Amino acid sequence: MSMVDVTGKKLVYREAVAEGVIRLRPETVRLIKEGRVEKGDVFDVTRVAVVLAVKKTSELLPLTHPIPVTHVDVGFDIPTEDSVKVTVRVKTIAQTGVEMEALTGVVAGLLNIWDMVKKYEKDEGGQYPYTRIEGVRVVSKVKSETS
Amino acid sequence: MSMVDVTGKKLVYREAVAEGVIRLRPETVRLIKEGRVEKGDVFDVTRVAVVLAVKKTSELLPLTHPIPVTHVDVGFDIPTEDSVKVTVRVKTIAQTGVEMEALTGVVAGLLNIWDMVKKYEKDEGGQYPYTRIEGVRVVSKVKSETS
Amino acid sequence: MSMVDVTGKKLVYREAVAEGVIRLRPETVRLIKEGRVEKGDVFDVTRVAVVLAVKKTSELLPLTHPIPVTHVDVGFDIPTEDSVKVTVRVKTIAQTGVEMEALTGVVAGLLNIWDMVKKYEKDEGGQYPYTRIEGVRVVSKVKSETS
Amino acid sequence: MSMVDVTGKKLVYREAVAEGVIRLRPETVRLIKEGRVEKGDVFDVTRVAVVLAVKKTSELLPLTHPIPVTHVDVGFDIPTEDSVKVTVRVKTIAQTGVEMEALTGVVAGLLNIWDMVKKYEKDEGGQYPYTRIEGVRVVSKVKSETS
Amino acid sequence: MSMVDVTGKKLVYREAVAEGVIRLRPETVRLIKEGRVEKGDVFDVTRVAVVLAVKKTSELLPLTHPIPVTHVDVGFDIPTEDSVKVTVRVKTIAQTGVEMEALTGVVAGLLNIWDMVKKYEKDEGGQYPYTRIEGVRVVSKVKSETS
Amino acid sequence: MSMVDVTGKKLVYREAVAEGVIRLRPETVRLIKEGRVEKGDVFDVTRVAVVLAVKKTSELLPLTHPIPVTHVDVGFDIPTEDSVKVTVRVKTIAQTGVEMEALTGVVAGLLNIWDMVKKYEKDEGGQYPYTRIEGVRVVSKVKSETS
Repeated sequence: MSMVDVTGKKLVYREAVAEGVIRLRPETVRLIKEGRVEKGDVFDVTRVAVVLAVKKTSELLPLTHPIPVTHVDVGFDIPTEDSVKVTVRVKTIAQTGVEMEALTGVVAGLLNIWDMVKKYEKDEGGQYPYTRIEGVRVVSKVKSETS
Repeated sequence: MSMVDVTGKKLVYREAVAEGVIRLRPETVRLIKEGRVEKGDVFDVTRVAVVLAVKKTSELLPLTHPIPVTHVDVGFDIPTEDSVKVTVRVKTIAQTGVEMEALTGVVAGLLNIWDMVKKYEKDEGGQYPYTRIEGVRVVSKVKSETS
Repeated sequence: MSMVDVTGKKLVYREAVAEGVIRLRPETVRLIKEGRVEKGDVFDVTRVAVVLAVKKTSELLPLTHPIPVTHVDVGFDIPTEDSVKVTVRVKTIAQTGVEMEALTGVVAGLLNIWDMVKKYEKDEGGQYPYTRIEGVRVVSKVKSETS
Repeated sequence: MSMVDVTGKKLVYREAVAEGVIRLRPETVRLIKEGRVEKGDVFDVTRVAVVLAVKKTSELLPLTHPIPVTHVDVGFDIPTEDSVKVTVRVKTIAQTGVEMEALTGVVAGLLNIWDMVKKYEKDEGGQYPYTRIEGVRVVSKVKSETS
Repeated sequence: MSMVDVTGKKLVYREAVAEGVIRLRPETVRLIKEGRVEKGDVFDVTRVAVVLAVKKTSELLPLTHPIPVTHVDVGFDIPTEDSVKVTVRVKTIAQTGVEMEALTGVVAGLLNIWDMVKKYEKDEGGQYPYTRIEGVRVVSKVKSETS
Repeated sequence: MSMVDVTGKKLVYREAVAEGVIRLRPETVRLIKEGRVEKGDVFDVTRVAVVLAVKKTSELLPLTHPIPVTHVDVGFDIPTEDSVKVTVRVKTIAQTGVEMEALTGVVAGLLNIWDMVKKYEKDEGGQYPYTRIEGVRVVSKVKSETS
């Protein structure tokens, strides 16, 4: 096992966009949209969780390199009445790509949504029959000599 | 926004099991199974990534409480020729449940698998047409007075 | 130099409230109140920064003990047209008090406000002639056998 | 909410100096000066706390960028018989300024002083009637093409 | 690979003492003793590094459990003219022993000494012909029902 | 005490190799070699612990600068029947050397081996009469204009 050697690679512009979806009960999605979740505004807290998680990627994934992230952008979307989508764009000037950073942001964001709506998703036995994270993928990766 | 107040709750036995799947090219799954991934043994590295991520949950998810985790167990499964499943069990004696810890372990594990097989999953344009994280869910949650 | 030995102390209910103020230009305070700060909702982001900082106290202050925080609550107030006050309440069942945790939350919150409104506070030379953090203090400390 | 995009900015020399004051009982200031604080040498421990906190800035303030800090310098001053001043200078070659890094160092330093002299500052009820952090500000910010 | 399950274990008093030695040039040891090392007082900075490292053990060693450390004590000794010994005592009330915490403190302390005296230890080629860490061991481990 | 000012230094290729040895009972070394240690494959887990520790160096050693590590390589050797040697190579393009990073990796690796074989090393009294970390040193340091 070893970290890929990127010593000789040039510092170039890198960008990656990743996304993922959390399936929730329609009532929960409605509470999120209307800002009525008791733990606070789900989108606001999640944006912060995403940005901090992107910056922690090299601590979480052993073989990734520390990256001087220059931009993180977080978007939300409600594609169906029972799901919320998180999209994360990361930019840098670095020797290696940032798709793992974007993906780490997406899953941290989806987990944070889950954490904030646990109360509405659990059944009487304390189980989660509906909640799922799905479709976590890299939407696009860009690498170019000029930013 | 605020952290739920668990001050008055009793310290009881808590357990949670979570799982999730990463979809990969069949060739990549074969390389993993045969231990021929260039970056190292995928299951071994992933186990470590999972355990460390479980212990980092309260840093990643703003509203979670610090938990004195007493056990983490990681399992792997190859349910189809194009997917790998990660299962994580977390135990504790605490005032609040550990499903977010188990889920954090699962997504960190799936992301680590992705990171280790990037090379085999990318197409010529550097994109990931097949790779997906799916079915991340809580399998079971237990809370009882005695462990 | 050494960490105070709390090994023999009883686990009892502890609570601390701390507060502090950031002085800003009246125009900046207005932008914050009206939610028109370009970097995002200042109160929402600050709440998250506070809660995460409280949990990081024992990493920042060398001689503090790790504490199983059970509750963090963050409040905002606009006492004058040119200031914002942050109040943080922390609870735990522990062998030692949590005033350093509450204070760490307050200063992290005030710094985060500063970071989000830098653009409106700087003069043409890039300096900060008005911005100040003042009045950071412990409002109250409670210790009792029962929570 | 989003992190400012600094991708296109040039790497230039940046420096920031910040300072702040902690008000203490005159007896406590005397103990600090004479090196008789039971928990250890306050200036020595505080210097370490400051340097480590400066390096942690991007973990504490969600919207700050990771910065390759090249120098941190910490100074102490006793401007009156009941206060201690902490001054922190941070240097880097980066795409964005380091005033938040210098400020983070200052407040971590002031909090560490508080933590080390708690015993002398508390009244019989365990409260802190005198202790305050005041005057935390950016003294100067420099940005230039050459260091 | 998995973390040992300590869920069913009783919370009892635990203590561990570890020590280790760094071999240095006699001139370097003299500079340390006389407090003339340019980077600062070696013992003071090292004490802080040790205490913080002890609290980070469960982040560094994947299979260790998070431990609520209740006391850390650091001692220094100059057993020969060309060596410095670091001794670390750690106490807790926990389900598992703290020898890995004490050992982590010792090696962090020894490495910090090395870092502070690099300048005096390097030869003209920038190599370290003398510097060595030796004799890192657990001096004693205690476990008892009462503290 | 202060961090050396490296602001004016050029970004050049840097490499450091460090090594160290852990003395164990011959039976324990045999179990490691044969992959029969109950806690898991010692070499695999240790490699991950080393790489993560290298990336954490500037958090552990107060006066070190954050370094954009570009490569980490970990090797194992069994020089005698009662010892295991860990060798770590670190590369970067930076303003300062990486020997502290390589050394941090070595000691984290040796401690992780210890943690994984505790059970086989302890005597009936729970003490460690044989286990020792020895010979931690910098094997070589390279600095050159071209990588």
